[in-house]
Amino acid sequence: MKSRHHLPHYRIAVVGSCAVGSYYGARLAEYGRDVHFLIRSGLEQVKRFGIRIKSRQGNVFVPKVHCHASTTDIGPVDLVLIALKSTDNSALETLIPPLLKPGTMLLTLQNGLGNEEYLAERFGPERVLGGLCFVCLNRETPGLVHHLSQGHVILGEFSGYPLPRTLEVQWEFKRCGVPCTVSASLGEARWRKLAWNVPFNGLPILSGGKDVARILADEDLAYLARRILDEVIGAARALGHAIPTSFADTLIQRTREMGPYRPSSLLDFESGRAVEIESIWGEPYRRAFNAGAECGRMEMLYHQIRHLTGERVHLN
Amino acid sequence: MKSRHHLPHYRIAVVGSCAVGSYYGARLAEYGRDVHFLIRSGLEQVKRFGIRIKSRQGNVFVPKVHCHASTTDIGPVDLVLIALKSTDNSALETLIPPLLKPGTMLLTLQNGLGNEEYLAERFGPERVLGGLCFVCLNRETPGLVHHLSQGHVILGEFSGYPLPRTLEVQWEFKRCGVPCTVSASLGEARWRKLAWNVPFNGLPILSGGKDVARILADEDLAYLARRILDEVIGAARALGHAIPTSFADTLIQRTREMGPYRPSSLLDFESGRAVEIESIWGEPYRRAFNAGAECGRMEMLYHQIRHLTGERVHLN
Repeated sequence: MKSRHHLPHYRIAVVGSCAVGSYYGARLAEYGRDVHFLIRSGLEQVKRFGIRIKSRQGNVFVPKVHCHASTTDIGPVDLVLIALKSTDNSALETLIPPLLKPGTMLLTLQNGLGNEEYLAERFGPERVLGGLCFVCLNRETPGLVHHLSQGHVILGEFSGYPLPRTLEVQWEFKRCGVPCTVSASLGEARWRKLAWNVPFNGLPILSGGKDVARILADEDLAYLARRILDEVIGAARALGHAIPTSFADTLIQRTREMGPYRPSSLLDFESGRAVEIESIWGEPYRRAFNAGAECGRMEMLYHQIRHLTGERVHLN
Repeated sequence: MKSRHHLPHYRIAVVGSCAVGSYYGARLAEYGRDVHFLIRSGLEQVKRFGIRIKSRQGNVFVPKVHCHASTTDIGPVDLVLIALKSTDNSALETLIPPLLKPGTMLLTLQNGLGNEEYLAERFGPERVLGGLCFVCLNRETPGLVHHLSQGHVILGEFSGYPLPRTLEVQWEFKRCGVPCTVSASLGEARWRKLAWNVPFNGLPILSGGKDVARILADEDLAYLARRILDEVIGAARALGHAIPTSFADTLIQRTREMGPYRPSSLLDFESGRAVEIESIWGEPYRRAFNAGAECGRMEMLYHQIRHLTGERVHLN
């Protein structure tokens, strides 16, 4: 059992305990990792009842959870999993500092573009890793997450190529049953994910709430999804990411396998919560525009969604 | 008064008695022209009460109107004004032949692209003229049209440069108080009009019914309107029409002067009538696409409007 002595014993903080934070935090806690959750709503409930994940891949129940109302209570850690909504990023300015010590890694599991940059500017680029979560989740109540499908994470370093610590974090996830791979280019990985998010988080909002299966079943929306997907891949290529154009087929195929999935942005939109407009549509559109890439479809999506969410706030 | 002997004495048929047909037909009839209206709904009402135009530029009342239930009743004419909705074009195959004699001119006042081609294929290109109506109208009941603003017509020959007859038709309009100019390029004139129609007929439908003033008052929609307008002008230029890019500013300025105008496509959409999707969005998009011009925004509009109108029919 010699190899166990080489396992890292990370002290881990989870900031943002919506679906993604609760899910990956619980997966690590289930395997005995020292995981500390910052919980801003439902703290008492999670303290008393723990975290449950309903999943066809096997339910998870973590009865005893380290819950905290502030990051000062958590104190310095080795690894921070950031799963806050990107619309709440400004809160990180005060949430993160109490968690820092030399070498603390900030791993953002947030959606879209701009989150690594936000952390790097404030806490130093050398601390920042990015993780892309390919997972269909819905948080039903604090402490109860419905895991619908997938679950793997792609990790990368914000500053460049993978480091030894990147592989250590990867294995920490893998040893806890979370499929995890390391990407040599976090930027490329982010754009590969955006290629899906831009059309399949966007069109459900614009189409009055259609799930991805209904998007693919509608002649016009399926055509637009494919054309938007191609445009995002084209923008990524213009930005230097070598994503093959055939990747669009792969994504469409994977989407077919998701069934009637309702993306988190749609649920946010419908329930009046903030929608991650800038990280999913705004920042990718601006980067495509600045690179001189074709971006008319992304522009339409971005401004239409901005308009619609503005209207919605207006109505509430 | 010698010049009066040179006036053409056209026998005129108006096919399609919605707002545009009623308005221009009544303008010509008001000045004593021999105008015959094909009226498919409200025939008895128009026969009894005539046609009224409510207008801040002066009301028009034509008490005695030549109304007909079929074009066979009208018989051959010199000039046919076609104001049918382009979605009903298939009806022209049977409506037009009874009106034809050698030299009969077919002047389509319909919106968008593809209508001249439709007539030219069936009745010969040498008969076909196109007219662009810059006019804000709403038909309230059969025989009652509300004229909101503008009114001028741009005429052109489908087959090429203006002919003597083009100028004769122009003067026939002008003598009846209708501002009318002749364009050396009907294609360019059509694209100039589309530059307005594509965004300002489209965005009101996609935004849940906003009039053009509210489109311009919304930061996101105003930006999109401008970007779509630029894209349509870019497509027109790629197709060889020398429209200056500054034309976009002119159109935005004119739109500001329209006030809270609700375009006819929006009224059609909201009341469950057919929307001229193909002539306003489909055909321009396809021509832009085939010319290799940027057309992502037109593509989004076209397919989103197709989707929405499909949904609407589904709900009815």
